[in-house]
Amino acid sequence: MSMLERARALDAADPLAEYRERFDLPEGVIYLDGNSLGALPKTTPDRLAQVMREEWGRDLIKSWNTADWISLPQRVGGKIAPLIGAQPHEVIVADSVSVNLFKLMSAALAMQARKDGARRKVILSEPGNFPTDLYMIQGLEKQGLATQRLAERDAIIDALDDDVALLLLTHVHYKTGAKYDMAALTKAAHDAGALVLWDLSHTGGAMPVALNECVAGEEGADFAVGCGYKYLNGGPGAPAYAFVAERHHEALEQPLSGWMGHAQPFAFDDDYQPAPGVDRLLCGTAPILSVAALEEGVDLVAEIGVDRLWEKSQALSEFFRECLSDAGVTLDLVSPEEADQRGSQLSFRHENAYALCQALIARDVIGDFRAPDILRLGFAPAYLRFEDMAETAQALAEVLENGEWQRDEFSERAAVT
Amino acid sequence: MSMLERARALDAADPLAEYRERFDLPEGVIYLDGNSLGALPKTTPDRLAQVMREEWGRDLIKSWNTADWISLPQRVGGKIAPLIGAQPHEVIVADSVSVNLFKLMSAALAMQARKDGARRKVILSEPGNFPTDLYMIQGLEKQGLATQRLAERDAIIDALDDDVALLLLTHVHYKTGAKYDMAALTKAAHDAGALVLWDLSHTGGAMPVALNECVAGEEGADFAVGCGYKYLNGGPGAPAYAFVAERHHEALEQPLSGWMGHAQPFAFDDDYQPAPGVDRLLCGTAPILSVAALEEGVDLVAEIGVDRLWEKSQALSEFFRECLSDAGVTLDLVSPEEADQRGSQLSFRHENAYALCQALIARDVIGDFRAPDILRLGFAPAYLRFEDMAETAQALAEVLENGEWQRDEFSERAAVT
Repeated sequence: MSMLERARALDAADPLAEYRERFDLPEGVIYLDGNSLGALPKTTPDRLAQVMREEWGRDLIKSWNTADWISLPQRVGGKIAPLIGAQPHEVIVADSVSVNLFKLMSAALAMQARKDGARRKVILSEPGNFPTDLYMIQGLEKQGLATQRLAERDAIIDALDDDVALLLLTHVHYKTGAKYDMAALTKAAHDAGALVLWDLSHTGGAMPVALNECVAGEEGADFAVGCGYKYLNGGPGAPAYAFVAERHHEALEQPLSGWMGHAQPFAFDDDYQPAPGVDRLLCGTAPILSVAALEEGVDLVAEIGVDRLWEKSQALSEFFRECLSDAGVTLDLVSPEEADQRGSQLSFRHENAYALCQALIARDVIGDFRAPDILRLGFAPAYLRFEDMAETAQALAEVLENGEWQRDEFSERAAVT
Repeated sequence: MSMLERARALDAADPLAEYRERFDLPEGVIYLDGNSLGALPKTTPDRLAQVMREEWGRDLIKSWNTADWISLPQRVGGKIAPLIGAQPHEVIVADSVSVNLFKLMSAALAMQARKDGARRKVILSEPGNFPTDLYMIQGLEKQGLATQRLAERDAIIDALDDDVALLLLTHVHYKTGAKYDMAALTKAAHDAGALVLWDLSHTGGAMPVALNECVAGEEGADFAVGCGYKYLNGGPGAPAYAFVAERHHEALEQPLSGWMGHAQPFAFDDDYQPAPGVDRLLCGTAPILSVAALEEGVDLVAEIGVDRLWEKSQALSEFFRECLSDAGVTLDLVSPEEADQRGSQLSFRHENAYALCQALIARDVIGDFRAPDILRLGFAPAYLRFEDMAETAQALAEVLENGEWQRDEFSERAAVT
């Protein structure tokens, strides 16, 4: 049986196969970039048409009450919560990942300062973390409020000394897909007196996470942020989410104290009084059109279920590796060998990764390139087929064999890749 | 001739009358809350359908290049610029008003600190300014980086001493509609060594502003922010805009230094290097659906033209006052008497303002209430008719005369008003 035949048999037996029809995907395209921008749920355009024509157009300002726009950030946050092992009131949709990082890093520093008089100012992360995570630490550093410390993965636990206020890590690495042991790192941070903030951008919606229960019998994660436009399929630049463990709600204090995070926004008081719990993470008015689109994506992922998605994700990537092997392709895998040690992607190092990626795109196999030399293939399990794996491996084999990627047209880099 | 007849004659002669048809407005409703949420441009649902079905659905990740999503914040900012007297490269669409206030206040403090070693830490504003403006100062105060000082309108210039780093004022007051003399205050701030940041939320799209040219022969405003969902008709919670005068571009430094504000976001460097000019105000990924909706609103306002809008706005509010007078209604006007001294609204103080507002809403005359005792009627000139003015005055007269507002059903406050 050829790999393509095997793939078709796997698709026929796949309990998630039916969900592909719930996305509006272009004909003939194999989309391996759902970890950068998730696909369009079929319900989203109708939902937004309704929000625009009925809620905004007909009911205008009244929709803040009648369509409950005012609770949309909490409602969608509450739906994301079970996907990441949180309670509904611990998660809220707001702003972007970057802005939420700033809020939660600031909150962590303030909490630590109340304990020790601002001795702990270090935010510890790893070099090569997703850039915005580091840039937001550097923003606080410019303000004189934090010190960035970077340690390689295997040196992080040793770097957790008495100066570390917060450990900020991205659970699944955007480039390599390597996954941290959330339990071990969370426990190590806590044992060292540090708080921990997990960036779940490449995690949420692709696999289950147990923020609250990650350390058996002990306190779980303190904070988390995550992206709405990858595995949650919320659309380009979809708003992000933020998690704060309930035990920190009362002490939570963050400097982006806008009116929507006030206890009574419509009292129009001159003095800021924080709203209860995670509501105080709201700053300005939420972009309702974008949050409504996110809700459609989240509902669909919740319906499929993250446990099933994760199971299929691992099966897809392992099958893809078999297909590569069968096609005689040997590539330098930078993702972990073991499926449960990585996220929903496989990344390969190749000195011509950019051109390789472009040559695949020309064949309607859409992966992406991550500078300087990584070809990244994402396996969004909600809408990909085993057949896509077999065909991608075949395409990659042909592109490599016939030197197609060496064409001039694939050498020039576009603005965004 | 009755006021209604006069109104119809004015509408017949109104060069802007045709633009009402460019908005999707509910039948039989007089909408006087465009200063809270602007109406729906008829093109917006189709534009968003296209962004979703074609750009997101068909071209997926490629749309960052092919649909130029990556430049959308700059493009829409550049279209807002002429409405506020700025150059296109001085304005960008990003985040919310609140978040942009934080960025620009931080930038102003950093600029001042480089000049004087952080002696100037005061951000001066007025009590009763729109709450989020004050709350964001208070956020910086909690960080230990700023000191809030509030002075009443007539005492602001005297309060501009050597400690003031930045004067932050809302050009048109959200509650009263009172308009600051931008030229006088900008000059006074500069003369005192302070920078000035104008909140144009109730200004932009309703009247012309001359940020760069406001002080004849001298430097104009330093910074500004403004709202996308009021007179720009960008939809509920539409993204906001930010202005930085070109002379400050090189020195501009703000702590929300996310990856989209990096000089080369897709180089994925560990170290933040700011993008040129206002691009460095970007933080996370822009919510494309919401920014695209904003573009439709901005295009329509730009087509009508802010000079004509402002002329009509003044005519509408003056005619409304005539109608009130003709109907024998005397209400306590808290907005300035002179049309050119106020924004595109009239606000009245009444001890039962909330119930009055609700009674009008029950008659499909939608104004709003601002705590504790203000009935606020906004006159968005792009889609309101003189006839609406005559009918609103008539409705108000009847509601007051027959005591309709005293019904129980109008006494209980909803969550958002």
